[in-house]
Amino acid sequence: MTTRVKEILSWYGSDNPGVKANLARMMNTGRLAGTGKFVILPVDQGFEHGPARSFAPNPAGYDPRYHIELAIEAGCNAYAAPLGFLEAVAGDYAGDIPLILKLNNSDSLAKVGEPCSAVTGSVEDALRLGCAAIGYTIYPGSGERNAQFEALRELILEAKAVGLPTVVWAYPRGSGVSKDGETALDVVAYAAQMAAQLGAHIIKVKPPKDLVEQPEARKVYEKFAIPSATLTERIRHVVQSAFNGRRIVIFSGGEAKGTEEVLAEVRELAAGGAFGSIMGRNAFQRPKAEALQLLHAVMAIHAGTL
Amino acid sequence: MTTRVKEILSWYGSDNPGVKANLARMMNTGRLAGTGKFVILPVDQGFEHGPARSFAPNPAGYDPRYHIELAIEAGCNAYAAPLGFLEAVAGDYAGDIPLILKLNNSDSLAKVGEPCSAVTGSVEDALRLGCAAIGYTIYPGSGERNAQFEALRELILEAKAVGLPTVVWAYPRGSGVSKDGETALDVVAYAAQMAAQLGAHIIKVKPPKDLVEQPEARKVYEKFAIPSATLTERIRHVVQSAFNGRRIVIFSGGEAKGTEEVLAEVRELAAGGAFGSIMGRNAFQRPKAEALQLLHAVMAIHAGTL
Amino acid sequence: MTTRVKEILSWYGSDNPGVKANLARMMNTGRLAGTGKFVILPVDQGFEHGPARSFAPNPAGYDPRYHIELAIEAGCNAYAAPLGFLEAVAGDYAGDIPLILKLNNSDSLAKVGEPCSAVTGSVEDALRLGCAAIGYTIYPGSGERNAQFEALRELILEAKAVGLPTVVWAYPRGSGVSKDGETALDVVAYAAQMAAQLGAHIIKVKPPKDLVEQPEARKVYEKFAIPSATLTERIRHVVQSAFNGRRIVIFSGGEAKGTEEVLAEVRELAAGGAFGSIMGRNAFQRPKAEALQLLHAVMAIHAGTL
Amino acid sequence: MTTRVKEILSWYGSDNPGVKANLARMMNTGRLAGTGKFVILPVDQGFEHGPARSFAPNPAGYDPRYHIELAIEAGCNAYAAPLGFLEAVAGDYAGDIPLILKLNNSDSLAKVGEPCSAVTGSVEDALRLGCAAIGYTIYPGSGERNAQFEALRELILEAKAVGLPTVVWAYPRGSGVSKDGETALDVVAYAAQMAAQLGAHIIKVKPPKDLVEQPEARKVYEKFAIPSATLTERIRHVVQSAFNGRRIVIFSGGEAKGTEEVLAEVRELAAGGAFGSIMGRNAFQRPKAEALQLLHAVMAIHAGTL
Amino acid sequence: MTTRVKEILSWYGSDNPGVKANLARMMNTGRLAGTGKFVILPVDQGFEHGPARSFAPNPAGYDPRYHIELAIEAGCNAYAAPLGFLEAVAGDYAGDIPLILKLNNSDSLAKVGEPCSAVTGSVEDALRLGCAAIGYTIYPGSGERNAQFEALRELILEAKAVGLPTVVWAYPRGSGVSKDGETALDVVAYAAQMAAQLGAHIIKVKPPKDLVEQPEARKVYEKFAIPSATLTERIRHVVQSAFNGRRIVIFSGGEAKGTEEVLAEVRELAAGGAFGSIMGRNAFQRPKAEALQLLHAVMAIHAGTL
Repeated sequence: MTTRVKEILSWYGSDNPGVKANLARMMNTGRLAGTGKFVILPVDQGFEHGPARSFAPNPAGYDPRYHIELAIEAGCNAYAAPLGFLEAVAGDYAGDIPLILKLNNSDSLAKVGEPCSAVTGSVEDALRLGCAAIGYTIYPGSGERNAQFEALRELILEAKAVGLPTVVWAYPRGSGVSKDGETALDVVAYAAQMAAQLGAHIIKVKPPKDLVEQPEARKVYEKFAIPSATLTERIRHVVQSAFNGRRIVIFSGGEAKGTEEVLAEVRELAAGGAFGSIMGRNAFQRPKAEALQLLHAVMAIHAGTL
Repeated sequence: MTTRVKEILSWYGSDNPGVKANLARMMNTGRLAGTGKFVILPVDQGFEHGPARSFAPNPAGYDPRYHIELAIEAGCNAYAAPLGFLEAVAGDYAGDIPLILKLNNSDSLAKVGEPCSAVTGSVEDALRLGCAAIGYTIYPGSGERNAQFEALRELILEAKAVGLPTVVWAYPRGSGVSKDGETALDVVAYAAQMAAQLGAHIIKVKPPKDLVEQPEARKVYEKFAIPSATLTERIRHVVQSAFNGRRIVIFSGGEAKGTEEVLAEVRELAAGGAFGSIMGRNAFQRPKAEALQLLHAVMAIHAGTL
Repeated sequence: MTTRVKEILSWYGSDNPGVKANLARMMNTGRLAGTGKFVILPVDQGFEHGPARSFAPNPAGYDPRYHIELAIEAGCNAYAAPLGFLEAVAGDYAGDIPLILKLNNSDSLAKVGEPCSAVTGSVEDALRLGCAAIGYTIYPGSGERNAQFEALRELILEAKAVGLPTVVWAYPRGSGVSKDGETALDVVAYAAQMAAQLGAHIIKVKPPKDLVEQPEARKVYEKFAIPSATLTERIRHVVQSAFNGRRIVIFSGGEAKGTEEVLAEVRELAAGGAFGSIMGRNAFQRPKAEALQLLHAVMAIHAGTL
Repeated sequence: MTTRVKEILSWYGSDNPGVKANLARMMNTGRLAGTGKFVILPVDQGFEHGPARSFAPNPAGYDPRYHIELAIEAGCNAYAAPLGFLEAVAGDYAGDIPLILKLNNSDSLAKVGEPCSAVTGSVEDALRLGCAAIGYTIYPGSGERNAQFEALRELILEAKAVGLPTVVWAYPRGSGVSKDGETALDVVAYAAQMAAQLGAHIIKVKPPKDLVEQPEARKVYEKFAIPSATLTERIRHVVQSAFNGRRIVIFSGGEAKGTEEVLAEVRELAAGGAFGSIMGRNAFQRPKAEALQLLHAVMAIHAGTL
Repeated sequence: MTTRVKEILSWYGSDNPGVKANLARMMNTGRLAGTGKFVILPVDQGFEHGPARSFAPNPAGYDPRYHIELAIEAGCNAYAAPLGFLEAVAGDYAGDIPLILKLNNSDSLAKVGEPCSAVTGSVEDALRLGCAAIGYTIYPGSGERNAQFEALRELILEAKAVGLPTVVWAYPRGSGVSKDGETALDVVAYAAQMAAQLGAHIIKVKPPKDLVEQPEARKVYEKFAIPSATLTERIRHVVQSAFNGRRIVIFSGGEAKGTEEVLAEVRELAAGGAFGSIMGRNAFQRPKAEALQLLHAVMAIHAGTL
C-alpha cells in the first residue's frame, strides 16, 4: 500500500479495521489505485429523474449491466447505485469493483414540500450484496433536515459496527436556501462541514459558485478576505471546511455538458485539492467509447498526469 | 481526591459509581484539578454556525486536532464536540482529556420555526469513543421543547445506566421568549431549574442580564427584592436556582470579545459562585498563544488565584 | 393494618399485590397512618412556574433537601416531585418516606397552544429511585388530551406490572373549557371520572366552584337538583363521581393563601368525604415552623380530631 | 430513621436508592424497627422437606395464611417463602409486612447427586407480589455451585436495577465438604465471604461448630490462633468474614429444638455481633402462642433488652 | 501523555478509542504513570481461598476498604477484585483509582474435577461500577478450557464495544499439565500466547521455572537453544511469546514470601522486559506500612530507578 493511502487511512483513527479496509479497497482499485484519488460512477438518476430522462440519450444504459461494466472498464474506484441496480449485477460481477449502496433516494414525481429522500436500502443489504460502503443523501437547508440527520446517525453507527464506511451526498436544498444559494460557496462549505460532523467518511458536494448566500457568513468571508474568485480557490475552501482536508471530499459534475467544459472544471477541482470526481450523467449518457475516454482523462487529471 | 470534589460528588447520591467516577474524572483533570471548578472547551460552532464563521478568524481551527490540543495544553477539564470532531481525534488522543459527546446539534442553514436540534450521536457512540459524559441542548421556550425534554429523558436514563453523566446546554429560545428575554434573569434561572429537574448533572447557561422577562415572575422578583444589579448577584441567583448550588452550573461567554471584557465577566461569575466557564469562540478564534493565556487567566480566576 | 385501610385496598381488586402494598405503604405512613386519609406534599412548581416564583417566598426551598425533610417532619403520607428533585434526595433519604415520581411536567416559559406536559421520567426511574407510585397530569379539555390519555394508558399498564400505583393530577384546561369552567363543578367531576376510567388509583383535582360549565350538564344538574351550594356538597359530588367513593380522591389547595382560609376549605373537604389534601405552595412557601403547624392542622382535620 | 439504620445503609454505597429503600423498609419494620437487627420468618420447608414433615407438628401451618400472620403478629422484619406461599397471601396481606420471594428451592424427593436448587420464581414475580427483596440459596461445596453462582449473578443484576436487594442463603453442601464440615467454622466463614463477593445484601448462614474442615485453612486458624471455642467467638469470625461486618449476616437456628436451647444460642449470636436470626421450624412448628413468645424473646435478645 | 504510553497504545490498533482511553487511564495512574509499567493490586483470594487464609495474616484486610486504600496510597495503576469487593467501595471511592472487575472466580471449597471458574459479574456491572477494565481467568490445560475460552470470547466482544479492555489471568491447570508443569517455561509461554490470541489486552501469568513440560516442545527448546537458565531469560521468552512484546504481560508473585525474595524476583522480571507486577498476598498480607514500602520498591524496580 502506498504512503498516501496509509496517510489518508490515518485520519480515520477512531474507526475499526473493517471500515479502514473498505476505504483502502476503494483507494486501491482501478486506474487511480494508490494515489488517494477517486473517480466514482454513480447511477441513481433512474430513480431520481426517471428512466427516459436518464437513459434515452444512450439507451444501453437502460440495462443495469451497462453501468457496472462501464465503471469496471473505465477503472473507477467504485460504482454507486440504489438497491435495484445493485441487486441486478452484484451476483454476476461479484468482486469486480467496490460497490456503494445508496441507502436513500428521492424521486421527481411526487410533489415536494421540504425535500426529503426515502430510505430504500439497509446496511444488511449492503453486506449481503458485498458492498464496500453505504451512501446517503442529506439536504441541509431543508425543513426536514433533522429527520435526515437522525436517520443518518443510526445508519452510520450500524454501518461502522460491521466495517462499512459511509459516503454522504450533501446537497443544500429546501426553504433555508435560495435556488442560487444551493451552490453558494458558504453553503457548500457548510454542507461539507455538516456531513463531516455527522461522521461521513467520504463527502460528495457540488462545485461551488463565487457567491456567498448567508448575510452572517458574508461578513466573515469579506472580513477575512477568503479567496473565492476561481473555482480552484473555492474548492480549496470547501476541502478546508471538511476538517482541513482530513476527510475525503469529492465533487460531482452536475448536468451533462461538453467534454472540454468537464475537463476544465476537473482541472480546477484537482488544483484545489479535491480528492476526486463522482461523475454520472456526463459518463453514462455518452456513447461508451467516449465515456471511457472522458473518464480516463478525468482520472489522469486527478492523478496529475494530464 | 480533595474534600471539595468528594463534597460535590455527594450531591449525586442517587447515581451509580460509574457516573460519579466520570464526574470525578473531569474534576480531577487539568489545571483546576481538585478545585471543583471547570473550564471546558466546546467546539460545536462548525455545525451550528458553519465553518467559515467559526474558523476563519483562526484558520488553524479548521483542523479537528487543533481544538483537542488546545484543550489539553490549556489544562481544561474536558473537551466537548459533535460526533465528527470527536471521531477525528478520539483514537489518536485516547486518554489525553475527558471528552463530552454533544448528542444533538442545530444548524443555521435551514429556516427554523420553533428551534429544535437534531440528535446526531448516541450513548453507544460515547462509550465507543471513550467519552466521560454526553451533552445535550434544550431550548426552553421553544414550541418544540417537549420533544426535546422527552428525547433527553431517554438519553439520560440510558447514559446513567452505563455510568455516563449528562451535561445540558439550557438555552431559552423560541416563541415563548423575546430575543432580549433569552438572557433575562428569570428566564436563565428557570432554564437552569428545568435542566436540573430533567436530571442534568452539569448545567450550562448564559450569563443573565439585569432584566426580568415574565410578568408573573417580575412581581416576585420585585416583592422579594431579589438582588440583580450586578452580574455577580445574578449568577448567585442562577446557581441558587439550580438546587441551591447542589448541581454544577457553568457559564458560557457567548460571542467573541476582548480579553479584558472576558476576564471582567469571569470575575463576576466566580464571585457569584459559578462552577466554571465553558468557553468556545473566545478561545479557539484567538491565536493559540493568546488563547492559552486567556484560558489560564480564566482558570486562575475560578481557582481564586487571580 | 386497620380495617379502613383494608377496606380501601379492597376497591382495587384487579390490581396485583405489589400495587396494593404500595397503596398501603402510603396509607400506613405518617400522622395519618391507618386512617385511610392522605396529606401529600407535592413540589413540582420549580419546573411548572420557575424557581423564583416557587421558592423566593421561602428561600430554604431552593434546596431539594428542604422539601423531603418538611414532608418527613410533618408526617405526610408521601412526597411527590419531578425526576431531578427526587434524584437529589432519594439516595440520602432512602426509606424515609414514600416517594411519588411525577412522570410528566409542564413549564410556563413556552408559548402554549393546547396544554400538554412533557414526559420527563419513566417507570424504570421510579423503581430505581425506590418510589411507591408514579404521578401523571392530564388536561381534560385540551385539544391534546388524547395524546396524554394514551401516554398515560401505557405508563399505567407498565407501572401496574411492576407493582406501582398511579396518581393522576386531573386539571381541566385548554380550548374545551372556559377559564372559569376549569373549576366548574361538572367539569371537575367529569375530570375525576375520566381519571378513574383511565385507571388512576389516586385522583387529584381542585376544589370545584358553584358553577356548571357545560349546557348539556347544566340541564341535568338542575333537573336532578344536585346539591352544590356549599363546598362540602360539591366535594361530595366529586367523590361520588369517582366511582361512588371507591377511588381515592384528594384535593389541592391551589395558590398560597391565609391559614384560616386554608383550614376552612379543608374542613369542607373533610366534611364532603375527601380522602385528603395535596398541599404544595401553601406548605413550602411558609416558614418551616408555620408550615408544620399548618400541615398538622390539616392532618388533624382529615383525621377528624380537629 | 435511626443513626444505626443510616449507618448500615451507608455500607451499600454502590446501590441505587430503590435497593436502599427496601433494605430500610425491612429494618424499619416490626419490633426491631430502627435497631439494625433482624428476625425473619422463612417458610420454605413445605417445598424442601414435604408438607407432613413441615406442618404436621402444628397443623395450622398447612394454611399459608398462618405463617404470614405469625410473622406479622410476632413483629418480624420480613417473611420469606417460595412463590406459591406468597401468591396465596400477598394480595390479602398487601403492605402488612415486607416479603422476600425465595427464587430457588430444592426438594427432598428426587435423588440428588450434587445439590442444586431449581429456580422457581423471578424478579418480575417479586415486583408483582410487592416484595421487598429476593432470596436465593447457594450450595458452596457442591459440584454444581458454578451454575448456581452464575444464575445468582444474573438475578442480582436484574433485581438491583429495579430496586430489590438480595438475601443469599449460603449453605455449604455437596461433594466438596464432609457432612460435619457443612457447619465447620472455616466452611461457614467461607460461605459467607462467597455470598458477599457475589453481591448479596443480606447473608444467611448456620451457626458454625468448633471445627475446621479444610487442611489448608486449619494451618491458618492455628497459626493465627483464631478464637473459636465459644459460639460467640465463632459468630464474630463469620461476621468479620463478611466484609468485616459491613454486610448484614443473619443466622438460622436449624432443626427444631427446646426453647432454652434456642435462646441460649441466640444469646451467643447476639454477643458475637450477628445482625439477627432467621427462624423457621423453631417458630412455626410450635403452637402459635408459644411461637410468639419465643420470637419475642429472640427479638429482645437481639435488641439487647433481654 | 508520554511517548512510551502512546507507543504501547499503538499496538492496539484495531480497538476503538474507548478501549485505548481505558488502557491509557491505567498507564497514567499512580507512581508508574507514564512509564508504561504496571503494578496492580488484585484481591480475589477471599473468594478463591476463603477469608481466613486470605486475611487472618493481616486482619485489616477483612474490610473491603482496606485494599482499595492500600492500592491508592501505594500508587498502583489499578485495583482488581470480584463484584462484592468492588460494590462495597466503588461508590465511596469513585474516581480514586482505575478498577478492574474480575468477571469470573473460582473457589477452593468444592471438589474440583477439571478446573473452571464461575462467571460472577458482567460487563454491565463493570460500566455501572465505573471500571476501567474487566478481568477473566482461563485455565489452559483444563478439560473445561473450551467453555472458558468461549465465554471469554463473548465477554471480550461485549466489553470492546463499550470501550473496556480485558485483563486475562492465564493459569495453566487441569488434567493437561502436571503440577510442576503449571509453571514450566513452555506452558507459561503457551498460556500467554493463548491469552493474546483470545484477544486479551493485558495478560497476567506466573513467573516460569526452568523446566519444559511438553515433549514436543522440549525438542524445539533444545534444538534452538532457547535460553532459560535465568528467570530473566525465561521472562524474556514469555514476553516474546505474547506477540513479541506487543501485548502487555505482567507477572504475579504467587504465595507470600520474604521481602528480599520478592524484590529479587521483580528485578529479574524487570530485566526480562516484564510490563509489571500484579501483587496480591505479598502486599495485603503484610502490615500496611510494610506493604507500602514493598510496593514502592517494586514500582521503583519496574521504573528502573532502583
